[in-house]
Amino acid sequence: MNFSSKLLEDAVAEFAKLPGVGQKTALRLVLHLLNQEKEDVEQFSRTISKLRNEIRFCEVCHNISDQVVCEICASHKRDKSTICVVEDTRDVMAVENTNQYNGVYHVLGGLISPMDGIGPSDLEIDTLVERLNNDEVKEIIFALSATMEGDTTIFYLNKRIKHFNITISTIARGIAFGGELEYVDEITLGRSIATRVPYENSLRK
Amino acid sequence: MNFSSKLLEDAVAEFAKLPGVGQKTALRLVLHLLNQEKEDVEQFSRTISKLRNEIRFCEVCHNISDQVVCEICASHKRDKSTICVVEDTRDVMAVENTNQYNGVYHVLGGLISPMDGIGPSDLEIDTLVERLNNDEVKEIIFALSATMEGDTTIFYLNKRIKHFNITISTIARGIAFGGELEYVDEITLGRSIATRVPYENSLRK
Repeated sequence: MNFSSKLLEDAVAEFAKLPGVGQKTALRLVLHLLNQEKEDVEQFSRTISKLRNEIRFCEVCHNISDQVVCEICASHKRDKSTICVVEDTRDVMAVENTNQYNGVYHVLGGLISPMDGIGPSDLEIDTLVERLNNDEVKEIIFALSATMEGDTTIFYLNKRIKHFNITISTIARGIAFGGELEYVDEITLGRSIATRVPYENSLRK
Repeated sequence: MNFSSKLLEDAVAEFAKLPGVGQKTALRLVLHLLNQEKEDVEQFSRTISKLRNEIRFCEVCHNISDQVVCEICASHKRDKSTICVVEDTRDVMAVENTNQYNGVYHVLGGLISPMDGIGPSDLEIDTLVERLNNDEVKEIIFALSATMEGDTTIFYLNKRIKHFNITISTIARGIAFGGELEYVDEITLGRSIATRVPYENSLRK
């Protein structure tokens, strides 16, 4: 694209670095900002800069937090003996939204992915093992994506922690609620037959 | 959504104000920025702030420009007697990309849209009339979107400038090159029959 201004070109280049944003979308966003009040754009710019510079992570679970220890880890109502291991803060939000979980979390900050150069040392794995050493943890639940990376991470984590005397579980995989059988992919359907559960168990709340 | 941090919530709210960006996309973009180097995020923030504060518009055609008069208006190679009237800088880029136009531009900065509260006085219309008064303009080409707003704007502009002794034209409308008749909508096809052109003219380069 031929831009009529260097400032415009720079701004479009910055926006185009964001995931899922191409040159055309970037230009649309930049022109939108140009139409806003100076004050509002300044606010936008300041908020982003502040976010990156002042963000903190909970000392215990490594979720994004404004305090040293996040609300969930600090709460007396949460069951500290169950830890749900998730990839990032979005997954914490997703699990919280179900209102089905009363334990605490451990945010890995990613998944093991040799293709992207992400190894175990890049993730909060040592800190998880430390938590198991110190705390009175009874159960670990892996709530990771059902992808190659998720499975690799679970495999590795399981090896690291299986010597502890705790229950290790993963969230159930199978057909989604409301899902019609004919539209379910073969792998999911096949696995959900192989890992079938007693009917009584499927009624558990 | 329940955010674990106020900083995170604020940043997501700012991104969600952008057109076509919802809460989930905003969160994805913000988490992406959190994974970047501080330096890079600072650069992103600074570029946006600089853009809004230092952007200038060409005195003549009102296109975005770093100079007082933009490159196109300042060029001796461009034909100053033909003015192409467009909505915004994206349209200038689109027409420039065709390599079919050697005149100059006039950027309105929007289209007349009573629904959005945009009237003629919000656009660069008076400055266009002024250009026609002063310069030796022979032709005006309206290259505006084929929408209600575009047509309204052309209708209004035509009334304002028809007393000048200049040719007023609009870009051709009809079926797109490569378009198959059976997939063309009825209005476009109907109008393209009504406004048919002599075969000789259709071969013009």
